[in-house]
Amino acid sequence: MTYCVGLLLNDGIVCLSDTRTNAGLDNISTYRKMFSFEEPGERVIVIMTAGSLSVSQTTLAELREAIEDPEATPETSIMLAPTMLKVAEIVGDRLAAVRAEIDDKMSAAQGASCSMIVAGQRKGGAMRLFLIYPEGNFIEATEDTPFLQIGEHKYGKPILDRVVRPETTLADAQKAVLLSMDSTLRSNLSVGMPLDLCVIETDACRVTMRRRIEAGDPQFRDMSDAWSNALRDGFGKIMI
Amino acid sequence: MTYCVGLLLNDGIVCLSDTRTNAGLDNISTYRKMFSFEEPGERVIVIMTAGSLSVSQTTLAELREAIEDPEATPETSIMLAPTMLKVAEIVGDRLAAVRAEIDDKMSAAQGASCSMIVAGQRKGGAMRLFLIYPEGNFIEATEDTPFLQIGEHKYGKPILDRVVRPETTLADAQKAVLLSMDSTLRSNLSVGMPLDLCVIETDACRVTMRRRIEAGDPQFRDMSDAWSNALRDGFGKIMI
Repeated sequence: MTYCVGLLLNDGIVCLSDTRTNAGLDNISTYRKMFSFEEPGERVIVIMTAGSLSVSQTTLAELREAIEDPEATPETSIMLAPTMLKVAEIVGDRLAAVRAEIDDKMSAAQGASCSMIVAGQRKGGAMRLFLIYPEGNFIEATEDTPFLQIGEHKYGKPILDRVVRPETTLADAQKAVLLSMDSTLRSNLSVGMPLDLCVIETDACRVTMRRRIEAGDPQFRDMSDAWSNALRDGFGKIMI
Repeated sequence: MTYCVGLLLNDGIVCLSDTRTNAGLDNISTYRKMFSFEEPGERVIVIMTAGSLSVSQTTLAELREAIEDPEATPETSIMLAPTMLKVAEIVGDRLAAVRAEIDDKMSAAQGASCSMIVAGQRKGGAMRLFLIYPEGNFIEATEDTPFLQIGEHKYGKPILDRVVRPETTLADAQKAVLLSMDSTLRSNLSVGMPLDLCVIETDACRVTMRRRIEAGDPQFRDMSDAWSNALRDGFGKIMI
């Protein structure tokens, strides 16, 4: 499985994904699930994927081909699309088509599926954050719910529900997604290190911070330990 | 949906369930999901249910009928069964039979399903805690994993993973299941107040504490607020 989360804040967008994929519990590998497309200062798009690797890899490959195609148009290339909404549509259509094709090859019972988070901004437009369903339709993050998650999203949702608001700072937002991931890592074996974290500051139209956090990363471990201690202390102080 | 959790500790068993059932989001009702069977000092059994109400109600009704049947045997009545393992088997068999029967009446796509937690002790035996799957098979809580959950279990798992050990006191255990429920209530609309909480102290062979926590219960609200503050304070103090 997978856990990916994206936050849409006043100051920017924060994205975090794990890297574990598995075909059964005895066949675990590391695959990047976060992909960025940039024309710095003009346009930035980050895509995170959860679900069948066969679907996500093919979809990403086709999106890249469409960008590189000399005959690319605003209808086919996410780097030429006039709006982020159009980007989400292109990704959704491509995802739905690939999924349907692969589904046809598989038994109905198995069914390959994949969902994606698409985040980004083009110069002159607003920052936007979409969740694309396997069927190609999508929803968008709003002020009321400024975060979207795909994959094993439930373990890490309580901390986001409590902490994340549009006015949350980018530093606090990074802390929130990392603690959300930490809870997921602890409670679900199928989500694993290393992690990919990126930040897109408002109106920068580029990825302003990008970090891979490896297993055993001392900073992440310290944060995780501090959070455990804070929870234990808090728990100890509560009277019922 | 539902959230039920049971803890098996050295000092006793703690069970907590919500009461929300829904047939679609616009048809929400309150139903008890925790049921106890007692011969105080001799035998205590608590059953919690998650899933299709039609399955759980029929299963419980049949279990009760089997107890009251004048020709009840240790093979059919959970109040006569020689061990808690046999109790789990009787419940599992009954659940699987009811589910299969109801499934036959429904389209395969819909499928009525239900899982249960069975907790208890008979005089002279050990306290035991089982999770019964819709198919009637079951697993048991152990020292390594002294808790079992059914229903919407993921939101409330991180706090249990961090806090609950066999040596946890019954007071801390109540706090842990209530905070686990609190996280679930906040993150998932389909789980709702009031709550049913019960404690079975080791070797008492009866329910030693039983409490219904209504919406707006001041003690629960204070605890929930204190936990929110503790999380926020802890979050604020962590450096990344």
